Amino acid sequence: MSEKKSSKQRQHAISPLRQEDFPEWFQEVVKEADMAENSPVRGCMIIKPWGYAIWERIQAELDAMIKKTGHVNAYFPLLIPLSFLEREASHVEGFAKECAVVTHHRLESSGEGKLSPAAKLEEPLIIRPTSETIIGHTYSKWVQSYRDLPILINQWANVMRWEMRTRMFLRTSEFLWQEGHTVHASKEEASEETLKMLDVYKQLAQEFLAIPVITGTKTPDERFPGACETYTVETLCQDRKALQFGTSHFLGQNFSKAFDIQFLDQDGARQYGWTTSWGTTTRMIGSVIMTHSDDDGLVLPPRLAPQQIVIIPILKKGGMQREILSFCEEIKERLEDQSYGGSPIRVAIDASDGSGGEKGWEHIKKGVPIRLEIGPRDYKSRSVFMGRRDFSPKEKQSIAGDEFVTMASKLLGEIQSTLYDRARSFLKANIQVIDSLSDFKDFFTPSSGSDGSDFFGGFASVHWHESAIGHQSLKDLKVSPRCIPLPDAGLGVGNHERGECIFTGMPSETRVLFARAY
Amino acid sequence: MSEKKSSKQRQHAISPLRQEDFPEWFQEVVKEADMAENSPVRGCMIIKPWGYAIWERIQAELDAMIKKTGHVNAYFPLLIPLSFLEREASHVEGFAKECAVVTHHRLESSGEGKLSPAAKLEEPLIIRPTSETIIGHTYSKWVQSYRDLPILINQWANVMRWEMRTRMFLRTSEFLWQEGHTVHASKEEASEETLKMLDVYKQLAQEFLAIPVITGTKTPDERFPGACETYTVETLCQDRKALQFGTSHFLGQNFSKAFDIQFLDQDGARQYGWTTSWGTTTRMIGSVIMTHSDDDGLVLPPRLAPQQIVIIPILKKGGMQREILSFCEEIKERLEDQSYGGSPIRVAIDASDGSGGEKGWEHIKKGVPIRLEIGPRDYKSRSVFMGRRDFSPKEKQSIAGDEFVTMASKLLGEIQSTLYDRARSFLKANIQVIDSLSDFKDFFTPSSGSDGSDFFGGFASVHWHESAIGHQSLKDLKVSPRCIPLPDAGLGVGNHERGECIFTGMPSETRVLFARAY
Repeated sequence: MSEKKSSKQRQHAISPLRQEDFPEWFQEVVKEADMAENSPVRGCMIIKPWGYAIWERIQAELDAMIKKTGHVNAYFPLLIPLSFLEREASHVEGFAKECAVVTHHRLESSGEGKLSPAAKLEEPLIIRPTSETIIGHTYSKWVQSYRDLPILINQWANVMRWEMRTRMFLRTSEFLWQEGHTVHASKEEASEETLKMLDVYKQLAQEFLAIPVITGTKTPDERFPGACETYTVETLCQDRKALQFGTSHFLGQNFSKAFDIQFLDQDGARQYGWTTSWGTTTRMIGSVIMTHSDDDGLVLPPRLAPQQIVIIPILKKGGMQREILSFCEEIKERLEDQSYGGSPIRVAIDASDGSGGEKGWEHIKKGVPIRLEIGPRDYKSRSVFMGRRDFSPKEKQSIAGDEFVTMASKLLGEIQSTLYDRARSFLKANIQVIDSLSDFKDFFTPSSGSDGSDFFGGFASVHWHESAIGHQSLKDLKVSPRCIPLPDAGLGVGNHERGECIFTGMPSETRVLFARAY
Repeated sequence: MSEKKSSKQRQHAISPLRQEDFPEWFQEVVKEADMAENSPVRGCMIIKPWGYAIWERIQAELDAMIKKTGHVNAYFPLLIPLSFLEREASHVEGFAKECAVVTHHRLESSGEGKLSPAAKLEEPLIIRPTSETIIGHTYSKWVQSYRDLPILINQWANVMRWEMRTRMFLRTSEFLWQEGHTVHASKEEASEETLKMLDVYKQLAQEFLAIPVITGTKTPDERFPGACETYTVETLCQDRKALQFGTSHFLGQNFSKAFDIQFLDQDGARQYGWTTSWGTTTRMIGSVIMTHSDDDGLVLPPRLAPQQIVIIPILKKGGMQREILSFCEEIKERLEDQSYGGSPIRVAIDASDGSGGEKGWEHIKKGVPIRLEIGPRDYKSRSVFMGRRDFSPKEKQSIAGDEFVTMASKLLGEIQSTLYDRARSFLKANIQVIDSLSDFKDFFTPSSGSDGSDFFGGFASVHWHESAIGHQSLKDLKVSPRCIPLPDAGLGVGNHERGECIFTGMPSETRVLFARAY
């Protein structure tokens, strides 16, 4: 802490800056916004109140979207019998290396106040890394006839994948998520469901979180273990690395065959069901941070922000403290009568100890979209001194209180659009069509004139053939295929002319987007 | 299934009846309402959509109450290092026997498609049975000065207690709950917090779930492991067994000493914090079932019900199907414009296959407060044929549609009150003041003239002295102390004259309520 400059001396609230050390900047944003911290359990984070409030906002919005598309919530067990995992071969292969295993169900004293595991389980249980297996087993009992279909269920839960290198909100051993699991009578219907949920994720990202995305299918090597097709929502972070925002899997009949999900169709014939699964996690918060935040900390899109406007009374001794506070209250109440994005504007007054300046910086670092300072002079002129989080912290503006109340909703909308537009321009500027392996290598190598920062690369749109999977240059560059953009992916990446794989020279039907990725 | 009578032959929808076999009746209510089922993992249940929708309703209500009393939500890790548990002696003792232990973090092939645990952890981890230890450890870092206090945090999570005998919604190895954990600068403030949250639980039970309760303190043998005082909300089920609805613990400085939660007070002196914890679980759903349900299945209080009114179109061939459906839609929309309990009335139309009678029984078994049948005759007279879940299924009434829409909110309120009043009369009738051990034994022994059912006992209010803990007659009768009622517990049980312990003859300051319990 002592090396850092105080807020008065420094230019920016976060140190290091993004350009100096992006990964460290990310950790500092999380810390300074008081969102989360590492726990004593390896790779598991503690989500602090501000971080959790952001998660609750995402949950509420996404839950409503999931319900609106005809799904209901349910809850399945945390623990899964080992034998269930064994049933789907590629699923096992994908998850066996990162399973936390419960082997005992009791602790016994081993002397001197120490405890040891006792009462060994007959069959070990794993903590769910995902729930296709236990839900598949359950659905096999629920599904008998075509009348039982479709099954459209979602679950909000914690899952555990024992990761070696973890980072808060990006890759943690335990994380929170939702996982949808559906069964359908036909391939077409299951396919449609997969795309429908992909679209829900896309909407959530773009409209609620102001994160522009590219949708596409994964190449075979990047599919979910056990899936026939994985659809993905990909975003680009400010360091030009890609981040997988959410995925929707068409599982074909793989899991219905492994778990015997069969039904009698309308002609009385026995058929295997067609299943899908789709999920998004607390990683979405990581995506919000890396898309919008700046060198002063977190920036929250207004629709997401738990507090959209914070009012900071500037109280000085003998300076009409009571009157100022009551003016703050009045402005708060009037703002709460206004609505934005279909709900009342969320306003807080920060009357805590500390100077106006200190408190202002705190809310900047927490990403609150609009700050209003109200001191003696503002009170006298019935005005507010406003700062927008999408502007520089120094750009503040005095506005008549009445006028601000009237325009607040519009202002929030403006900030939401600004954030989206900025991120979209950035994304667009960092997609490059590349037609040779040497250009590809250049694209993913920091240029000699660069500042040595992590800021290079982006999405490279190249022709590709399946035989290029695992190509040495991808390993060398730490680059992976992110997706084959869908025709409606936008940004001009969904039109696939034929060409030649830049890695193998084989004929190629489609372009694939490659990037370094989280 | 084959032994059961069809719905036309039988008198009631649930078999066995409550009087015949209460535990089995309970399982059948859960099953017939499609709320939950047992899973392949010992003691863990699958909460099905209808059961989960009920849980979501409770969560939303309680979460709002918890936030209104100044708390915020956060999330702490699922796994707890073994060494944390060792730090508070009585806490260990209380939970060691029921801990699921994670010992490995990987699976390896052991041939023939079989998997075995691999990569042993240096220190075993337990799945949280409750989170005082890991949260205590975290708070020790968050709390430095009196300015950091109070800390008022709640968590919604799953927990695991390896139980030998489990029952859905009553005692399951994994269950869902909320756990509040707070730190305060003074004993008084912590004490006040404990009582405040007890009151929140009492309100939730009585006003939202229509369950009358008795509040009190636990006797020392029934306290939460590590608590100085445990406050409890106790309810009485229809078989006259008590059920602990929720608890609020004053933890004194036990956990702050075990985890070193210290702060500098306003005079610069180092002090240990005072902590509390409080929790309620999916067991509340068990309490709802055993308080209100009847021989026809689940009965949901209107404020809780995910659907408050279900409309069942009675469609016959060539019988104005389209007109009937559009009348149903009209009634639904008009009802949704009405509000009850502060939110729009929740209405569903059940246009699924099946006869009106079958569908009617389904919604009776699911506990929907009001059913409206609308057939050709009703359509013609613009009326609805209404059944109330608090009346017999046969009592149905034709009402003009307009009139029903106008009175719907009042009707729902009436049903809510009726359920509460019934349960309160039952509770009151089953509290007995007892002043001798022989009367006590009689009270908890099925009388010779009884039907051999589980319906005997209730709350016995008796004088008691601590030295009676573990008395043989309590073991013989399977009766335990439930609480020492608080002065404001109501129902005339909170006035404590002095007396003599019925077990030991020792002087007694208070009466204690005893009961058989879940």
